[in-house]
Formats: sequence, C-alpha cells, structure tokens
Amino acid sequence: MSNPSPVKLRFKNVRDRSEQLSQNLITEDFSIQPVDFVSPPKWHLAHVTWFWEQFVLLQFKPDYKVFSEDFAFLFNSYYNNLGKRVLRPIRGLMSRPSVAAVMEYRAYVDEQMEALFDSGVLTEQGYEIIETGINHEEQHQELFLYDIKYILGHQPGFPAYGRGFEPAPVTEPQKFHKFESGLYDFGYQGSGFCFDNELMCHKMYLNDFEIAHNPVTNGEFLEFMNDGGYENFNFWHDEGWHWINNNQIKAPHYWHKVDGAWHYYDLDGFKVVESELPVNHVSFYEAFAFAEWKGMRLPTEFEWELACGKLHYGSVWEWTNSAYLPYPGFQKAPGALGEYNGKFMVNQMVMRGSSAVTPPGHSRPTYRNFFHPNMRWQYAGFRLAKPQTL
Amino acid sequence: MSNPSPVKLRFKNVRDRSEQLSQNLITEDFSIQPVDFVSPPKWHLAHVTWFWEQFVLLQFKPDYKVFSEDFAFLFNSYYNNLGKRVLRPIRGLMSRPSVAAVMEYRAYVDEQMEALFDSGVLTEQGYEIIETGINHEEQHQELFLYDIKYILGHQPGFPAYGRGFEPAPVTEPQKFHKFESGLYDFGYQGSGFCFDNELMCHKMYLNDFEIAHNPVTNGEFLEFMNDGGYENFNFWHDEGWHWINNNQIKAPHYWHKVDGAWHYYDLDGFKVVESELPVNHVSFYEAFAFAEWKGMRLPTEFEWELACGKLHYGSVWEWTNSAYLPYPGFQKAPGALGEYNGKFMVNQMVMRGSSAVTPPGHSRPTYRNFFHPNMRWQYAGFRLAKPQTL
Amino acid sequence: MSNPSPVKLRFKNVRDRSEQLSQNLITEDFSIQPVDFVSPPKWHLAHVTWFWEQFVLLQFKPDYKVFSEDFAFLFNSYYNNLGKRVLRPIRGLMSRPSVAAVMEYRAYVDEQMEALFDSGVLTEQGYEIIETGINHEEQHQELFLYDIKYILGHQPGFPAYGRGFEPAPVTEPQKFHKFESGLYDFGYQGSGFCFDNELMCHKMYLNDFEIAHNPVTNGEFLEFMNDGGYENFNFWHDEGWHWINNNQIKAPHYWHKVDGAWHYYDLDGFKVVESELPVNHVSFYEAFAFAEWKGMRLPTEFEWELACGKLHYGSVWEWTNSAYLPYPGFQKAPGALGEYNGKFMVNQMVMRGSSAVTPPGHSRPTYRNFFHPNMRWQYAGFRLAKPQTL
Amino acid sequence: MSNPSPVKLRFKNVRDRSEQLSQNLITEDFSIQPVDFVSPPKWHLAHVTWFWEQFVLLQFKPDYKVFSEDFAFLFNSYYNNLGKRVLRPIRGLMSRPSVAAVMEYRAYVDEQMEALFDSGVLTEQGYEIIETGINHEEQHQELFLYDIKYILGHQPGFPAYGRGFEPAPVTEPQKFHKFESGLYDFGYQGSGFCFDNELMCHKMYLNDFEIAHNPVTNGEFLEFMNDGGYENFNFWHDEGWHWINNNQIKAPHYWHKVDGAWHYYDLDGFKVVESELPVNHVSFYEAFAFAEWKGMRLPTEFEWELACGKLHYGSVWEWTNSAYLPYPGFQKAPGALGEYNGKFMVNQMVMRGSSAVTPPGHSRPTYRNFFHPNMRWQYAGFRLAKPQTL
Repeated sequence: MSNPSPVKLRFKNVRDRSEQLSQNLITEDFSIQPVDFVSPPKWHLAHVTWFWEQFVLLQFKPDYKVFSEDFAFLFNSYYNNLGKRVLRPIRGLMSRPSVAAVMEYRAYVDEQMEALFDSGVLTEQGYEIIETGINHEEQHQELFLYDIKYILGHQPGFPAYGRGFEPAPVTEPQKFHKFESGLYDFGYQGSGFCFDNELMCHKMYLNDFEIAHNPVTNGEFLEFMNDGGYENFNFWHDEGWHWINNNQIKAPHYWHKVDGAWHYYDLDGFKVVESELPVNHVSFYEAFAFAEWKGMRLPTEFEWELACGKLHYGSVWEWTNSAYLPYPGFQKAPGALGEYNGKFMVNQMVMRGSSAVTPPGHSRPTYRNFFHPNMRWQYAGFRLAKPQTL
Repeated sequence: MSNPSPVKLRFKNVRDRSEQLSQNLITEDFSIQPVDFVSPPKWHLAHVTWFWEQFVLLQFKPDYKVFSEDFAFLFNSYYNNLGKRVLRPIRGLMSRPSVAAVMEYRAYVDEQMEALFDSGVLTEQGYEIIETGINHEEQHQELFLYDIKYILGHQPGFPAYGRGFEPAPVTEPQKFHKFESGLYDFGYQGSGFCFDNELMCHKMYLNDFEIAHNPVTNGEFLEFMNDGGYENFNFWHDEGWHWINNNQIKAPHYWHKVDGAWHYYDLDGFKVVESELPVNHVSFYEAFAFAEWKGMRLPTEFEWELACGKLHYGSVWEWTNSAYLPYPGFQKAPGALGEYNGKFMVNQMVMRGSSAVTPPGHSRPTYRNFFHPNMRWQYAGFRLAKPQTL
Repeated sequence: MSNPSPVKLRFKNVRDRSEQLSQNLITEDFSIQPVDFVSPPKWHLAHVTWFWEQFVLLQFKPDYKVFSEDFAFLFNSYYNNLGKRVLRPIRGLMSRPSVAAVMEYRAYVDEQMEALFDSGVLTEQGYEIIETGINHEEQHQELFLYDIKYILGHQPGFPAYGRGFEPAPVTEPQKFHKFESGLYDFGYQGSGFCFDNELMCHKMYLNDFEIAHNPVTNGEFLEFMNDGGYENFNFWHDEGWHWINNNQIKAPHYWHKVDGAWHYYDLDGFKVVESELPVNHVSFYEAFAFAEWKGMRLPTEFEWELACGKLHYGSVWEWTNSAYLPYPGFQKAPGALGEYNGKFMVNQMVMRGSSAVTPPGHSRPTYRNFFHPNMRWQYAGFRLAKPQTL
Repeated sequence: MSNPSPVKLRFKNVRDRSEQLSQNLITEDFSIQPVDFVSPPKWHLAHVTWFWEQFVLLQFKPDYKVFSEDFAFLFNSYYNNLGKRVLRPIRGLMSRPSVAAVMEYRAYVDEQMEALFDSGVLTEQGYEIIETGINHEEQHQELFLYDIKYILGHQPGFPAYGRGFEPAPVTEPQKFHKFESGLYDFGYQGSGFCFDNELMCHKMYLNDFEIAHNPVTNGEFLEFMNDGGYENFNFWHDEGWHWINNNQIKAPHYWHKVDGAWHYYDLDGFKVVESELPVNHVSFYEAFAFAEWKGMRLPTEFEWELACGKLHYGSVWEWTNSAYLPYPGFQKAPGALGEYNGKFMVNQMVMRGSSAVTPPGHSRPTYRNFFHPNMRWQYAGFRLAKPQTL
C-alpha cells in the first residue's frame, strides 16, 4: 500500500506543475485546436481536473458537490461509460468556459482533494486510483506540451514557448550492443504503479540481435534525405509511400528550408537544424524507411526492453517495429477506467523510452507508449537494430 | 465632394462602434473560427484596420510607417493584388497576435488617421476611399455580429452576447401592393456613396406584379414545417433538396426543439420561437420552397427595389429570385479595390433590405447584398410576390 | 395539333438514331461511369425508353403491360414523383441488365408505340407528350455523345469513337455586329414545340451593344494561355480562381501537351490542336476569364438571342453571362413532367446555340441550355461582346 | 528442385481454372469496379497473365516478344519497380481493352509458356518463380471471387454467380482444445513452396490456452446482435466503434433484413440466413467485439497454428489477434518480387485458415493471410480462445 503523505505531496506537485506549464501562454493560446488530434490547452487543464472529480471525489468524498454539472459533460475525453461527451474536433470551438473559470475549477478541486486527503477516509483502492490520476495528469502534461508546440509552431512568426524542453545532443560514440538468443521475461514486475498494458509479466523467446547505443541523429537523417530517401519507394511501406505522397512529406515535422538551409521549430524558437540532436517528429513510416535505407531495421519493443539498461537514453520516444497488442494476461479494469488502454490496441505501434517533455519520473523500462504510424507531433525518434532479418 | 469635418467625425464614430461591439466578449471569444465562412472577431477588428493602413495611410500620408510588416500579411482578406494572404480556414488558428496587440494596432492607425485628417493633404480621391473604408468597416461590423452569433450560438450553454440586436415583431396587417407593368429605372442615381455593384442606373421592363407588405413570419414558417414542407421534394430546387437531405436540415438555423417546443438562439439568449417575428436564418432554398408551397414566388430584386418605399421594412435581409450579376455599365475599380464586388458575381443570389444588425444608415433601396443560396448564418428572411408566374 | 403521320415517322427516326449511335461501341463501353455527372451509355438507351413507357404507354395505351417492373426503378433519372430511383453515382455499377436486355426493352417499347400510333386512340395531349419524348430522346443523344467522349477520352490509348461529330473550323473574317438600345421581345413565340423554360415571351430593355461574328478559336485561346491567363487572378471570378487551382486546370478539357505541342482528344481520335477550330470544352469560369483578359465580356442570353440571326453559328454551345432563371410567366407542368426544368433554376448559367453533336433540328434561337459554371464535358465554347461594361 | 512435368501440368491447371471461373459472367460484368478495393474481373485475368510475361517469359525465354507494350502498363498492380501503373481506383474505367483482347493475351502467353516449358532452358530459379506465379494466380482466383461477389451482390436483383462456393455448415459439437504453455516452433519448415512471410521458422513461448473446435456461427452471431452487441461501446475498439457508427454497420456484410428476417447474398443467390453456417464477412472489429461480449478473446496466429491440426476447419478465413509483422529472419526477395509481402506489414491483422473460395491445395497451416481490420468483403469469420486474459 502507498504511504499517504508522499502521495498527497505528489498530488500537489503534479497539480502545481500543470499550472507552471501554463505560465508561458497568453489567454488566446488556451482555446485553439488547429487539428483534430490536438486538444486546446484549456481542455487539458480542465480534463485532468474532471478526472479527479469523477474518479476520486465523487467516489470517495462523502457529500461531494461537483463544481459544475456542465463541466462533467464538457471535459470528458473518451470515457463512453460516463455519458455523452464533447467530440474531439469541436473542442477548439469552446471559447467558454473561460481560462479563469477553468482555473477556479482547478482550485476548487485541489481544495476538495486536500480535504479528502486530510479526512483519513481514503481506502487503499482510493490511493490506487489517485496513483492513476497522478500518472494521468502527467501524461496530459506531456500532451499539453505536444499541443502547445503544434499551436505555436504553426503560427506565422513561430513564437517561442520557453526554454528547458529541448532534446539533448548525442555525444557518446555510436556502437552496437549484442544480445544472445534466449527466453526472457518482459513486462512490469515491480510493486509500484504501472499501467495495465505493461502486464502480465510474461516470457518471450528472442533471437540473437544487436541494438544501437545511440538514437539516429539529424545529421544521419539528413544523409537519408540527401540520398533521395523520400523519393525511393523501395524503402517504404506501401501505406507509408502513399502517406508521404498524399501529404507531400519531405522532411520531419517542424522542419522548414529557409534560404537553402534546414531550420526547425522547437519550444524555444526557430533555429538551424543541428546534426548532433536526435532526429525528432518523424512518423513510424519514416523511421522504417530510414532503417531500410541503412540496411538495418527497427528493434522490437522486447529487444528494446531487454537492452535499455545499456543504451544512451535519448530525449525522444523511440518507434519500435511492434504493434500495440495485449500481453498474455492483459486484464482491463472494470468500468470507465477500463477504457484507458485496451480499446486502443489496434493499428498503433509501440514507442519506448521517454522524451525531453516527459514529466520527471514518469517513465520506466516497461512503459509502453503507442501512436498510429503516421503520427509525428509527439516527440518521436528511433534507433536501429540488426541483423536486418529480425 | 464630401465635407471633411463630418467625414472625420464619421470615421471616428465607425471606429468607436467596432470597439463598442467588442465590449461584450471575453478574450477567449476573439480567436475562434468554428467554420470556414466565419472569421474570428479579432480578425475583423484587425482587417478593417489594415484596410485603412493599406488604402489610405500608405497612399496619402507622407512617410507613413506601418505598425507591423507581419500584420499586412496576416490581415489581408482576399485582396490578391496585395500579396500572399492567410487562408480563410486557418484564421482561427492564430492565437497570436493577441487581442491587446490588435487594439494597439487600432489605436496607432486611428491616431495616424487623425493626423492625416488634420494635415489637410487629403485629396478628393482620398476622401472617396475613406468613404469606402467607412462602409467597409460597417460591413464588417455586421459580419462581426453574424460571426459572434455563430460562435456563441454553437457553444454548449448558449451564452448571450447582449441586447439591442433582436429583430422586431411584424405588427402591421398583411396585404399585397400592386404594380403596373412598364419600363423603370434601377440602380443608384444619387450623389452620395454607393458600391460599384449598384451602378449604372439602367432601365428594366417589369410585368404586372404584387408584393407582400410584410415579410414571412415564424408563425407562417411553422405552418410550412408542420405541413411537411421539408419532406416534399416538389417544393424544392434539385440542389436544395440534396442540401436539406445531406445536411439534415429540418428548420431554420439556430432553431432547436426542446421538450416539444421550438426554441432559438438570438444574441440576447436562448428563447421560445415567437410567431410574430420575421423568420430569420433561412437559406435561399428554404425561402424558395416556402414560396412554392404557398403557390407564390419570391420577388426579383427589381420588383423589390421598385416597391420598397411602400413596404414594412423587416429586420432581416430578404432573399430575391435574382442572381447576383453585373448591371449594364458595371465598371470595376482599378487595382485591389476592384476586387471588392465583381469577382463574386457568379453562383450567388441577391438579398435586399437591411437587418437588425446592420449599422445605422448603412443601407439604401439600391443596396445589393449577396450570398450563396445555401448560406444562412447571415440575417436572412424573405417576402412573397405574385402572380406565381413571374 | 401535330399531324399524326410525321410524328410517328419522327418517333421512328429518333429511336433509330439512338441505336445508330450505339454501333461504334463495344459491349464493355456501355456500363462505365467514370464520374458522377457521366451516365453509362446503356443507361441512356434504357432511360429514354422508360420515358416512353411511363409517360406515354402507361397513360394512353389501354392494358399496357410494362416490360419489367425492375426497369421502372432502374432507369428513372430524377423524377422524384415516380418513386425511388437509382442514385446517379451508382449507375456505373450496374453490369446487369445486359446491353442485350436493354435492346430487347427498346424493341418491345418500339413495337408497343407503333401499335399505339396505329390504334388511333392518341389524343392531342398524347401527341404533345410524344413531342416532348422525342425532344427528350434527342437531348439524351447529345448527352450520350458527351458521355462516350468522356469514357473513351479518359482511357489509356484514346480509342476513337467515329467520324462526323467534329466541330467545323471558323473561316469567316471576325467582325462585331452593332445593336441599338431598345425594348425587345424574347422567348418562344412560334406554334411548334418548345421547352417550358423558353416561355413566356416577354419584353426586355437592352442597352447598345456589339457582339462578335465568330466564336473564340483555339488559336485565340492559346494566346490567352501563353500570356499567363491561367496564372493571373485578376481575370477570374473568386470561385473560378479556386476551381482552377484546386483542380490544377491549365487548359481546356481533353487537351494534353505532348512533346511540347498541345494535342486534344475528339471523337475521331487524338490530334494536334488546330487554331481555326472554335475553342471547346471550357468552363464558364474560363470563358469569363478570357473575356476579362481581352477587355471585353460575354454576351447576355438576350443579346445573343437578338443577334443570333446574323452570327456565324459555331459548332459548340456558347456560354452567356446570364444565370438560368425563370422568365416572367414561367409555368411548370403539373406532375412529374414539371420536374423537367424548373427545379434546376439556381446556380447554373445559360448556354445558347447548338453543337456538332446536337441532333439535327433540335435547337432554336430561343433554346436555353444550362450548366453549372464549372462543367465542361459538354461542347462548350463562347463568343465575345462589348462594350466591356455591359 | 521441382520436377518439371508436374509443374507444367499445374501451370496448365491453374490457367484453365481462371477461365472456368469466368464462364458464369456476362461481358458487362468484367469491367465494373464498385469500390476502390475491388478490381474488375477483367483486370485479374490480365494482371496474372502480365505476371507470367514480366517475371518468367521476359526473364527466361530468349527473344520473347511481349503481346502488347500497353498491357505492361495497364496490368501492373503495385510493382513500383516495374514502372508507372494504372491507379487502383481507375481500373474500373477501362472498358478497353476488351474481354476478348484479354483472352487473346492469355492464349498468347499460355502458348509461349508451353513453348518455354518444352524448350528445356528453364533453370531451377525459373521453376521457383513459376511456383510463385502459380500461387499468385491462385491468390487472384480467390480475389476474383471476392470481387465478383461484391459486384453482383451490390446490384439490384442480386443475380447469382453459380454454385459450389458456399461455406459448409458447422455440424460437429462445440468444445475447447487445451494446450500447455511452452516453447514451440512456428513458420514453414517444409521443402515445398511457401511465401516469404512464413519464414523463418522460429521459436515462440506460449502460455496455457484453450481454443474452440468450431468457428462462430451465424446463430451465435445473431445472439450477439440481438443482445445489442452493435450498440454497446464496451465491446469495441475505439476505432471499431467509430467505424460501425460512421458506416452505420449493424450486421455482417451482405446481410439484409427483409420482412423482419435476416437474409444474405451468397454466390448462389439471395437466401435466408442459416444458423449453422459459420459467420462470414465480418471485420476484425466485429470479431473482437463478439469475443469481448462472450467474455473470451480471439486466438493469436501462433495459438491457431499450434492447434490447427485438431480444429474443425471452417470454410472462412479466421481473424486472429496478431498484427501482420515480419517473423525473425524475414528476408524480402530482391527486386520487384520483394514487393510481394513485406511492404504491407503495417496496420493489418493476420487471418489464418482458408475459405470456400480458396483454390484447392492453396493453403497450409503456416499460411499468413492479412487484411486491414475494417475489411470484410473477403471470406472472413473467426473462432474463440480463452482464458480471456491472453
């Protein structure tokens, strides 16, 4: 069982951090939804608050009175079990409630949560849901930064958000770590928090493989681009080839050629592409094509998990060649919390690692992130493995 | 030639009114673009200001320095002659510049305009363009209110904007005014300002006709609805029939059935539909279908113009059965101002009259407004004419 | 009243001609629908037959037994009054009934019609509907050729259909005919057949104008193209500009640049563009843009009608700057035949004249053809008028 | 090395069978493409012939002269390495070449192949490619039947194709086979032909599981439907839920409710749904939802492969919960043949087994078929496994 006091402290910290992340924005930024997969910053701030209200306060605090009936409707995300919800593509049309009202909502819920912590009525199950809630708010903090980057990075003028979220250069020499074939255990085995998709711990047989110490860098990716990588269908999945052609993709997202030199937008502004940085904002299709061009391949999520202790950890999530599927023994939670992960287990690819915008302490070696193969507004890079034949 | 002083005063008044109209909004409202034909309120405020800068200050004020090079790019609407412009459907993604920055832009331009007025260097041609600018800002004030209504009227909660913009009830008894066939003059003949599309004054031969004294009311439109008007293709244009079916149109825009009773959203809030009000927010297709159902027809724009002195003026623009085409002698202005009207003369229908949200003094009997036949976010009603056979 | 014998003969002739037009096709050609506005040739052959069955045989022949209940459903076009119909975009999916079955259907109906003619029971009203049916089948013969041209002209290999349908070169010298302002009569005044949209004959006042003797030729249109006509927005309607850019239009339909020279597909095969031919397969937008570039304008349908006796008749229909609207006194027929024209009187432009694929004797000076302004698979050219100001 | 004589015989047999499958069609059926994923029957007949020409005759027959340069362009499918190809969605617009011309093409290539067989110049590599070609033509025979079913099954009248392709009823009693956890070998280990995606043979560790003896039947699927299975989002992937709602899916493909009773179209005509038949034409999403409703799950492709020797083989392909990914050691062939499988290994799910329309002898226990999860025009059913937790 979790120890109550640190949980209360961690609750307070995660809530404070969401508000710190909001400091660099102006009121107008909070309600914009430039594309359907990006949510307005205001919505994130309210939705995580709604989670505390729905799954903790309404369940565990006697006589809890919701801040507003309307908010329950407006800030649900995809929990179908909890009633009608605002469709994703129209979130960006809600100028109301105001940012100020959302901040009042946050303050009210924080106060109520503090009272709940102090009341001593929280059960072990309550603390477990609070753990989930903390992790949930951390996930939204990362999405909040993806979405802010998208909102500011698609405005004329490329306004900067702030410093402290830039990927770090790759400085260690490249090499490949070798692993022997054999039967290994995968999935979470600890006693702390993990998501349901990391369970059950189970055996997998892996063949011999080698995996790169460093992720692929901008400099290496530029070689691929300069060698016509985006023009040669032999490197691409059939879907990937259609995707780059239909969308006229010729470089990672946020890259722009200005006066003959590649530049990119990062949260601290618009800059020249630096070779030593890990390549970022590429889709699975692009990662796969690069690996084909290199005569290598992407690692599976299991190779990655086995090797990760020895790797130079990048500051971008890393595409694997594993589809996002349930582990043997996967069990979804009952009720609305069961909608968290399981229902997304089709047509998505697993990413491993963490990124420069992942909240401190949020990731683990067994952590399974997942995105559709064409998505690249998230912090998304990759590393290589071999032999080419898996 | 216009007399300088009243023009300066009218300039000041129109500028002040734009800012008064903004008082009822919160900062978050200013940047929303719910559909491509609606512009964010912030954009209207900046675009009309850009007009003064481009067409007056840069032309007539020696050594004028633009407020910001970026704004010239951002707040152009469709004047292709003046360089690249932000595409309509992405205006709503611009959280920057802030509302405050736009207000600074307005203040700067107002100050510069005042200095220009006082400098005495303005030529007659300058005053003519200023007249156009005043009328341009008035047009955007009306669009501003259409767009605010759309933004607030599509939010959960239907927040009110404010009072003073509601259509007035039809209180006079209905009757039909008769006119004799003959050759009449149409188009603007006065010495004041008019738009290029109101010229030249020209002759048209009209057959005998009768035209209704009052516009069609909500009560009459409800009869059409209750009689299955939306379900009988015989009343509809082929395109109209597809349009209502593809979009599942069953009532005027902003109408919602709540607990069995029709309600609607107006700028002062959400209310029960009142029978005496002129029907508002209907498309040309719906107006035409109603007339077919009634065994009558819509008037042409010429019938309307001839009759208008005797009519109960509604508080909604009125669809006519005239396509928006150039008058004999139509001459578009040279350069960017020539893009004002002529290039829209295809696939649109003429509306006549004015509305509850038209700025005071902005309309005239010869004024030609125009919209695509499926548009209905504007204040749009209609009146009947006969015989059915035109 | 029509004289029975020639009508019977004309009936036979029009039916025979439909079948002659089918001789040049192979079975595979009859069921293709490459785009939604093109109908499969098989469908035309059956639909015109259905018309005879529905509007003549079932109305006037005692105890008439339909060929097949299914065909009544399958080959209705847009007559909503006569029950559910096969949607236009799926006509091309019907491999069944076979072409042979459709030909049996034709033979059956022809035989029944002959018996009806010979029975002497036909009333004057019956003969009038037969006149409409003959004109209806003639209209579909022209559409049949547009559609065959589209089907064959979009296949790899550009197979020829046959000779005898090519526009004729413009050989007379160009000049402009002058007309004085005044009040004139327009619309059909004769005692023979006309469509409802040509009525009533009514007065219009026209200003002075001049109209070109010849239609615009390929050679002249190439000058426009070579002068950057498709790249300069000043010549285009706003909608036209979007249309050419969204669809990457850079030349008339069926034109292809091969080895630096413009070629085009015509029903007799793939050929080099000849300067002396009237330009064909251009949209209203392109016709308008050419006129703007030339500093002239398109004539109105009334100017065209007044002048047509003096003009070199082209072999392409000619765009006018008139929207397709009802004439004063327009009266649609009761029932399904009333769906013929009136319900299309929105968003279309009038074309006047006739074309190289119009059945002999089908057109008249008062004939009003109509198409959406972006359509150009029909035989579509234009001539110029002036002064530029209408 | 393969023994030449049987290969020649098998070549002849597979070619003959393609033509036998064409006997039941009329000429009009061969060129229809109702949706983009369906190819016209004519295209299949020509494309498999093109394969023999490109990969065998041009490679191995000295001085081979292609039947037609145009056909090489027209009947390539997705082999980007072999030049420009006709895009899938426009295959259905090609009325030319005629069916007769395609049959001549087939006869010419057959004759040339026979001469090649008899010439004795074929190398072992040549025989290997011929094996691939035979399997390729067999795959297209199955697709040919899917596509014919789609073409005829979406026509008014539901014309029958013929008998002999109906799934067989499930007659054995249902039970679950138990398997112990352990390390097993998967993938093809024989010496005959297999596709590259069945290699390499590799080890996988499986947990204890049970798998159903029979596939799910129509009767069982009706229980799911009657229990509101299509209305309860808890059973569905998030994507599946959107898919059924956007497409208004309420039953398997080809099912229609007539007079209150479920009917379906099969190649032998339109019939009442029979409870004992395996459910067919369901998507992966529907199979998954059914399993969730039942409290069980779909097997993985490895569970299926391990168990298949004991199972009642259905007459429909069976969805597994395995994504289509490369096996360890997967090696794609060099050149155009390498485009066969590898480039599709993203966003598709593995199906195992075979169907009532699979050519005799075409399948194997290690055979991996694959489709996007929303596809269901193929013969697609499924069986259950447990425990629910994988």
